Amino acid sequence: MRITSHFISALCVTTAFVLFSYSTFAKPRAREFGIPFEGIPGPLNAITDVAGVEVGYASIIKGRGKLVVGEGPARTGVTAVFPRGKKSDEPVFAAWFSLNGNGEMTGTTWIEESGFLEGPVMITNTHSVGTVHESLIRWQIEQDSYERSWSLPVVAETWDGYLNDINGFHVGRKQVFKAIDSAKSGVIEEGNVGGGTGMVCYEFKGGTGTSSRIMKTSAGTFTVGVLVQANFGRRHQLTIAGVPVGKQITRDAPFTNGRNLYEETGSLIAVVATDAPLLPVQLKRMATRVSLGMARTGGTSGNGSGDIFIAFSTADTGEGNSENGLINIEALSNDSISGLFSAVVLATEEAIINALAAAETMTGRDDHTVIALPHDEVRSLLKKHNRLSD
Amino acid sequence: MRITSHFISALCVTTAFVLFSYSTFAKPRAREFGIPFEGIPGPLNAITDVAGVEVGYASIIKGRGKLVVGEGPARTGVTAVFPRGKKSDEPVFAAWFSLNGNGEMTGTTWIEESGFLEGPVMITNTHSVGTVHESLIRWQIEQDSYERSWSLPVVAETWDGYLNDINGFHVGRKQVFKAIDSAKSGVIEEGNVGGGTGMVCYEFKGGTGTSSRIMKTSAGTFTVGVLVQANFGRRHQLTIAGVPVGKQITRDAPFTNGRNLYEETGSLIAVVATDAPLLPVQLKRMATRVSLGMARTGGTSGNGSGDIFIAFSTADTGEGNSENGLINIEALSNDSISGLFSAVVLATEEAIINALAAAETMTGRDDHTVIALPHDEVRSLLKKHNRLSD
Amino acid sequence: MRITSHFISALCVTTAFVLFSYSTFAKPRAREFGIPFEGIPGPLNAITDVAGVEVGYASIIKGRGKLVVGEGPARTGVTAVFPRGKKSDEPVFAAWFSLNGNGEMTGTTWIEESGFLEGPVMITNTHSVGTVHESLIRWQIEQDSYERSWSLPVVAETWDGYLNDINGFHVGRKQVFKAIDSAKSGVIEEGNVGGGTGMVCYEFKGGTGTSSRIMKTSAGTFTVGVLVQANFGRRHQLTIAGVPVGKQITRDAPFTNGRNLYEETGSLIAVVATDAPLLPVQLKRMATRVSLGMARTGGTSGNGSGDIFIAFSTADTGEGNSENGLINIEALSNDSISGLFSAVVLATEEAIINALAAAETMTGRDDHTVIALPHDEVRSLLKKHNRLSD
Amino acid sequence: MRITSHFISALCVTTAFVLFSYSTFAKPRAREFGIPFEGIPGPLNAITDVAGVEVGYASIIKGRGKLVVGEGPARTGVTAVFPRGKKSDEPVFAAWFSLNGNGEMTGTTWIEESGFLEGPVMITNTHSVGTVHESLIRWQIEQDSYERSWSLPVVAETWDGYLNDINGFHVGRKQVFKAIDSAKSGVIEEGNVGGGTGMVCYEFKGGTGTSSRIMKTSAGTFTVGVLVQANFGRRHQLTIAGVPVGKQITRDAPFTNGRNLYEETGSLIAVVATDAPLLPVQLKRMATRVSLGMARTGGTSGNGSGDIFIAFSTADTGEGNSENGLINIEALSNDSISGLFSAVVLATEEAIINALAAAETMTGRDDHTVIALPHDEVRSLLKKHNRLSD
Repeated sequence: MRITSHFISALCVTTAFVLFSYSTFAKPRAREFGIPFEGIPGPLNAITDVAGVEVGYASIIKGRGKLVVGEGPARTGVTAVFPRGKKSDEPVFAAWFSLNGNGEMTGTTWIEESGFLEGPVMITNTHSVGTVHESLIRWQIEQDSYERSWSLPVVAETWDGYLNDINGFHVGRKQVFKAIDSAKSGVIEEGNVGGGTGMVCYEFKGGTGTSSRIMKTSAGTFTVGVLVQANFGRRHQLTIAGVPVGKQITRDAPFTNGRNLYEETGSLIAVVATDAPLLPVQLKRMATRVSLGMARTGGTSGNGSGDIFIAFSTADTGEGNSENGLINIEALSNDSISGLFSAVVLATEEAIINALAAAETMTGRDDHTVIALPHDEVRSLLKKHNRLSD
Repeated sequence: MRITSHFISALCVTTAFVLFSYSTFAKPRAREFGIPFEGIPGPLNAITDVAGVEVGYASIIKGRGKLVVGEGPARTGVTAVFPRGKKSDEPVFAAWFSLNGNGEMTGTTWIEESGFLEGPVMITNTHSVGTVHESLIRWQIEQDSYERSWSLPVVAETWDGYLNDINGFHVGRKQVFKAIDSAKSGVIEEGNVGGGTGMVCYEFKGGTGTSSRIMKTSAGTFTVGVLVQANFGRRHQLTIAGVPVGKQITRDAPFTNGRNLYEETGSLIAVVATDAPLLPVQLKRMATRVSLGMARTGGTSGNGSGDIFIAFSTADTGEGNSENGLINIEALSNDSISGLFSAVVLATEEAIINALAAAETMTGRDDHTVIALPHDEVRSLLKKHNRLSD
Repeated sequence: MRITSHFISALCVTTAFVLFSYSTFAKPRAREFGIPFEGIPGPLNAITDVAGVEVGYASIIKGRGKLVVGEGPARTGVTAVFPRGKKSDEPVFAAWFSLNGNGEMTGTTWIEESGFLEGPVMITNTHSVGTVHESLIRWQIEQDSYERSWSLPVVAETWDGYLNDINGFHVGRKQVFKAIDSAKSGVIEEGNVGGGTGMVCYEFKGGTGTSSRIMKTSAGTFTVGVLVQANFGRRHQLTIAGVPVGKQITRDAPFTNGRNLYEETGSLIAVVATDAPLLPVQLKRMATRVSLGMARTGGTSGNGSGDIFIAFSTADTGEGNSENGLINIEALSNDSISGLFSAVVLATEEAIINALAAAETMTGRDDHTVIALPHDEVRSLLKKHNRLSD
Repeated sequence: MRITSHFISALCVTTAFVLFSYSTFAKPRAREFGIPFEGIPGPLNAITDVAGVEVGYASIIKGRGKLVVGEGPARTGVTAVFPRGKKSDEPVFAAWFSLNGNGEMTGTTWIEESGFLEGPVMITNTHSVGTVHESLIRWQIEQDSYERSWSLPVVAETWDGYLNDINGFHVGRKQVFKAIDSAKSGVIEEGNVGGGTGMVCYEFKGGTGTSSRIMKTSAGTFTVGVLVQANFGRRHQLTIAGVPVGKQITRDAPFTNGRNLYEETGSLIAVVATDAPLLPVQLKRMATRVSLGMARTGGTSGNGSGDIFIAFSTADTGEGNSENGLINIEALSNDSISGLFSAVVLATEEAIINALAAAETMTGRDDHTVIALPHDEVRSLLKKHNRLSD
């Protein structure tokens, strides 16, 4: 199945013209290489298959050559994920999990305590957390006509200092507002975009990736979507659909230099969305399963990796309908939840590979270059191992 | 207010005869000394004020003199707390918290994962956890006519080796069944009873204690009940209603010997019950507040103390009504929950002092003796500090 | 005992002139009222009794009258706590605990994962977390001559919107740098200072407070220091040395209006420092005990309170001496740790009351006024309850 | 490399006679099929490659045909893992992690609190936890000549009710003592043995498996060993060295019946041992990585699975040498730890497949039969996918 067919169903696009237009600009997706991912994706194979979810980006790519702190080169950005769209400030049930906490996701203390996420999930580079944090509050205050007096933003980060002038603080309020304002449902971009602009994954160019799964349960059919900012892993570890790809494409691996084959220079941030009605205690279990999806791509979560995951449900929390302090909640029984766990695992695996598939070779600070995943070689390796899906 | 007046309203007892009968056998309760506890207790001032909760005990007091392992003296027992009564195997939402984990509460891994407690909470001595664990499963199997094939019992413990032949394993299946079979609602015994039989608290005789609070919220009035097995604290720490009682009653403190004034030899197990409809994430918060109630009695949770708390709600989880895997749950909004947190704190404080109030001087193994809290002296100290409530 | 006598021993000041000078400017401390706090404080009765710890502040008090967002009135600030002084970037072992996570402390995910705190602890108002986060990184980069490429700052907050124009973002880079640059050992200010400038505690004026304890263990004598930013509690809850002060001083309580007597509008941030050599797993236990100290002042940690605590040890982590990846660490045995737990409890209790003692009546936005704790009335109540220490 | 060559080096066996003898009895190991596992195993490719670790078993296989509770058929047992051998009661640093807590591992509350494991790790079936718990304490008391008065045993479980009369309580004190007494270093048995006797994994016969890795770090070369009791997974999920084996061997899958393809009926217990000097905070990270090794075999940790892991280091904790309460500890820097994380992942993956490789077809209660992994078919599938290592 090729991604174009997804877009047809998703966007109800029926004319060849639009299809053509899209194909002209769209980045490739991993399924197009014939990778036999398991499970049934949603129409967009994206986190935006979960109704209401909106994703926006601001990407900063400017300058080239030698690093001059504050001037560039800049290869960074901001990603915004709104559970119910940017027009809604209705909270969602949520939970988080840290597989390896060498990173930051602000706002998690309140999520852990209350079970609620009360705003978007923002993702940026390590040193821009502060700017994004403050800028989001400023934006929220504006939405509320200055009546909001309390916000604990959720801002996650991964480190892009190999390609980006991370000490130059290129992300500003303007970019944060742009990421927020551009948030939308439907098809979303992958690869070198938003917070994922300057990312490196398995020593190939990484970045933003997404995927989704449709899962039938006794209580109905639900969608699970995952968005990742993929910035982790050493080359030899990369596994695609079980095939040891990284061991067979060894060239141009910037960090593999004979020293520590397991040290990470990056991180994995993952956002899991679902329309299944899950309680916070259940969403914690969903967030935890991101680990297993990451493992299927070969990663072992080295000391330096900030592998931090958040999961939310867009189902009604009942808070909006409460009159007297009692809320009515619908939730899935634990007896029906296991399929959703698998959906998280499978969508995470594909989202990571999608990030690699869409990302393009990038040259950044001090002419550091990170190559894109060579699609043809991957396809050859899949064939060699009798794993091509088409 | 004296406890007898509680029983009148609670038990709808209107004849003097019954009141008299009760008074004959009842142990004293802390309020009778004029201790000015805060908040409004339920009619029984006990965990059984939460409808459905049943508590049963088996107490073992046999032998005297020098310890002969296996023969005695035995000063131990078992306590059983059934959230919905022993006739029901319907789970309740639950959560737990470990303030200082030098102890055991089995079954908590599944409570943490699922948010459900699927049986009673059993409490015994440290070395009888295994027997109680197996015996409870045997009892559960019998209830199910041998169709039950899976159980993860919740068994907590505190150490009674100062008074009890703990290596003699005096608790057996028979006692466990007795504790279960005797579980009932209504007035429950305190002091040297059940798992609390051989306990020591602030170097006075400790044991089992209970208390409750009625709390009005925007969503209605709810009851919070606490049952403790109190086995912690050094004498100088004991504080009653803010009065430094322990510093002023220094005699007969068995562990205070000039060495470590802060080391614990015991533990605090607490069971918090409420009829407020709370989600697991909220019950975690309730369990955590037991710490604050303990602190009000002066304890600082030394290294040797197993201070482990569990909280459950008897409200409907919806699991019973699920047809297709969707459950409907009513829950209290977090905006209405703070009063319940205070209720946990206050009921914990009083339950601990109630354990001290009801426990009687006990002589156990090797003629170790632990004296009861001298009620008159406490009353005098309250008066000295202008804190008598009556 | 009056604080001035502490300073004599601490500062080796022997001339009446200097003593006089100090007395001229010093704010009162709780012990001066005759409050019988337990335990032995260090010479300064402050977190700076732990050698190496430096504390700095920037306070912003400007404007008066009606709130105009962005203009003021501003009543806020920044506090910086450096474990080894601001000249050192050597990490310390650390851990954290969230009693009620309605708040923020960034950087805790890495502390939890690694056991290390790798910079200062910053405290500010809720909406200035971002600015402080970014500004600290900027300062760190400057210290390293732009060679530092990775920082996960620890920034905590409490809400000061009742007195402060919190949506006006009055904290800027300049104030952050000032708090850092002014960090020093020795006597530190309390009350309306730094991040604590606009705080409210038990509906009296709150703010910054500190205290310390000296504890003898089998392995030597160690110091435990606590610094709090106290912004929590309802009036009726305030308890001082066991005396129910809050119930007896009911006037001018800005949030007590007949509705929810247990709802919090604030938070408690606590920083625990010790020179005892403790492992991260042990420091987690230290941080947890802050809860118990808070409880002794009457608080029950309502839903709206961000009660988040961090503890660190200034002992050598061995990281600095590692040549080949092996580090040598000295640690206290758990058998000797219980006294330090009590030290945390006692120092927390006194630090909170010290914040109340030092804070002065403040009028802020929209002429909101919060009165200072009336010292004479507290003294009278202590006397009434026969609890005066002198 | 075939396992026999391992034994040669490990046991310093040089005569063909002994080699022949061993080969006669030894069960096959996964590497013998040509599975290309990553990393370098220790000489035994077993948890016992970590010096000091001893493993013992008691297996109960009796009766056949229809289930009569209490009579059988019995297919169960007990496994004992001693970190420093059964002659030592010196504690080790330890930590645990629950990927999905639908199971039990007693004793973890104290491990979490203290960082110490103070006895063996026992593994049995779900309903025999109590017996093993009590029996271990009895054994410990005997070792100490009745001077031990406090024990919090670590007992884990997985459910074997499909093959075993789990409600018959066939494990008794005798079997627990046998498992303990038979504990030894060197070659250890795999498959249908000990607690793993009646286990089912990916709907093939599962059980006990082990593996190890040798990892070079800047601080020296360390060993990581893993022992699993493998009782999880649905057939279609089974992945061996990236090859989707389970999807291609679909026959005789007892639980796959068209209903829920993701529901688990079992669990994964894993014990991670290392001689690397790691602190508790670091061992938590090691335990967490078991999840990633499990994921590489295809599992997604369904609701019904008790996936609970413990990790310990046999390095000196210093407790034994403490004179005055100060202990000296050597620890690995986090900068050198990532390779050990990978070692956990790789050894877990192989230990699970080893359990499958060694387990033999078993018929148990009610003639339930679970087939062994068909070795030849696995080899064929590896070849089909060009993944044979030899």
